[in-house]
Amino acid sequence: MSYFNDKNSAEIVNARMGAETDPRLREIMTSLVTHLHAFAREVNLTQDEWDHAIGFLTRTGQMCSDERQEFILLSDVLGFSMLVDAINNRRPDGATENTVFGPFHVANAPIRTMGDNICLDGKGESCLFEGRVLNLDDNPIEGACLDVWADNADGFYDVQQPGIQPKWNNRGRFITGADGAYSFRGIKPVSYPIPDDGPVGKMLGHLGRHPYRPAHIHYLVTAPGYQKLVTHTFVGDDEYLESDAVFGVKRSLIAPYERTEGGDTVWHSRFDFVLAPV
Amino acid sequence: MSYFNDKNSAEIVNARMGAETDPRLREIMTSLVTHLHAFAREVNLTQDEWDHAIGFLTRTGQMCSDERQEFILLSDVLGFSMLVDAINNRRPDGATENTVFGPFHVANAPIRTMGDNICLDGKGESCLFEGRVLNLDDNPIEGACLDVWADNADGFYDVQQPGIQPKWNNRGRFITGADGAYSFRGIKPVSYPIPDDGPVGKMLGHLGRHPYRPAHIHYLVTAPGYQKLVTHTFVGDDEYLESDAVFGVKRSLIAPYERTEGGDTVWHSRFDFVLAPV
Repeated sequence: MSYFNDKNSAEIVNARMGAETDPRLREIMTSLVTHLHAFAREVNLTQDEWDHAIGFLTRTGQMCSDERQEFILLSDVLGFSMLVDAINNRRPDGATENTVFGPFHVANAPIRTMGDNICLDGKGESCLFEGRVLNLDDNPIEGACLDVWADNADGFYDVQQPGIQPKWNNRGRFITGADGAYSFRGIKPVSYPIPDDGPVGKMLGHLGRHPYRPAHIHYLVTAPGYQKLVTHTFVGDDEYLESDAVFGVKRSLIAPYERTEGGDTVWHSRFDFVLAPV
Repeated sequence: MSYFNDKNSAEIVNARMGAETDPRLREIMTSLVTHLHAFAREVNLTQDEWDHAIGFLTRTGQMCSDERQEFILLSDVLGFSMLVDAINNRRPDGATENTVFGPFHVANAPIRTMGDNICLDGKGESCLFEGRVLNLDDNPIEGACLDVWADNADGFYDVQQPGIQPKWNNRGRFITGADGAYSFRGIKPVSYPIPDDGPVGKMLGHLGRHPYRPAHIHYLVTAPGYQKLVTHTFVGDDEYLESDAVFGVKRSLIAPYERTEGGDTVWHSRFDFVLAPV
């Protein structure tokens, strides 16, 4: 038996797990402890810095409530959420890429008719969204569900402003027909800051980072026999496109937004979603 | 500009830090993000596992109060606290080794006279503690302060049982004279569990680990011109000596405890503290 020291620390901690420990839990904890200890050694973490980290984690946990998940926010701004998303959603070439789900989806949004306007508060620059849901062979998928959600022109989701925005503002579900096509009206998305009045926002400040997400609209696209697609499309001229606070941007998800001539609709964005089979 | 993917993720996140970021913060965050991302990749962390981790961290934060620090407990049982202690207290050969401070120290304990009994509740097996405070040349240090604290015979510190234990039970400060010697009466230490009714205790259960610390008595030894020594001495026949829940045991800190013949005192433990110069 050898006792703990600053060289063997991770091995000693990991050797302590019982024989009956679930193998997957053992694998995860072994890797986590090894990396955390390597980190402390690598930077020669001081006692004061450790105290500070304990305080930070405690404040982060205590900021969490039914309306606020500060640990998810921390994971987001460290790129950890996007990395987990990327690891779990490796897709064949040609399939639309995933990106982070985010905290603002609401299940069971109203099912709308193609062409409907999901913007219920009359704010923002009107935009026609259209395209098709396809498989990897370029064939349309019938019966696909596009669940759409976006912030309003002021940069807030309806759930962030109950009583101010109409319920289901900038949300809706659309079911494709035999042609796989979808179309609806909404607004040209606008960028917004993630909640930055807590410990994570303060950390971003110390790191010289802003809290903004580039303008985007969320899609959850599902169809029987196909992998669930959780993604956004982004507006190509957004000033935060290369500095998304949560690292959600992928080049393939930057959609065209073209100014239209005349009519009520000011913008037009066309994007096809390609689903990979399960 | 390249966007985030599952290979370059840590580089992308770290490159986002502003030019004005404090260099030490930059060093720490770069290493932390690199190791956390490597961990997620190494184990192919699933979305469900990530959800579970977010829930665990949140519960850990919300368990914290003025009386309970669940994140320190988490750091302790993962060996992280001991590693930080080890990194920051590398001592020359011959100097007494450090170990974790723990949450139970109280500043400004009463200053006692050599030979005093610090056990105020009359419980436990009486033990005479004695020895000397020395420098690396084996010379006595005059004016050293030994600040001592220990649990009572039921395994609780006085601060865990206000109104049940007398204030300052099993605590005291002793100042050495010209001979560097100290002596006081207390009890032979007993083992006790760390608080295991929270998320960290539950985690220990899943890992097949017990929550016990082997019997020990705490010392904070200070003297002008010498490095602060935070340590314990351990009882050599304790059943948890090789499985301390917080990895605090070092071989050099296992003290002799000898049964005495006759008299009020049942045990005798002799230990010299050797301080390194600042």
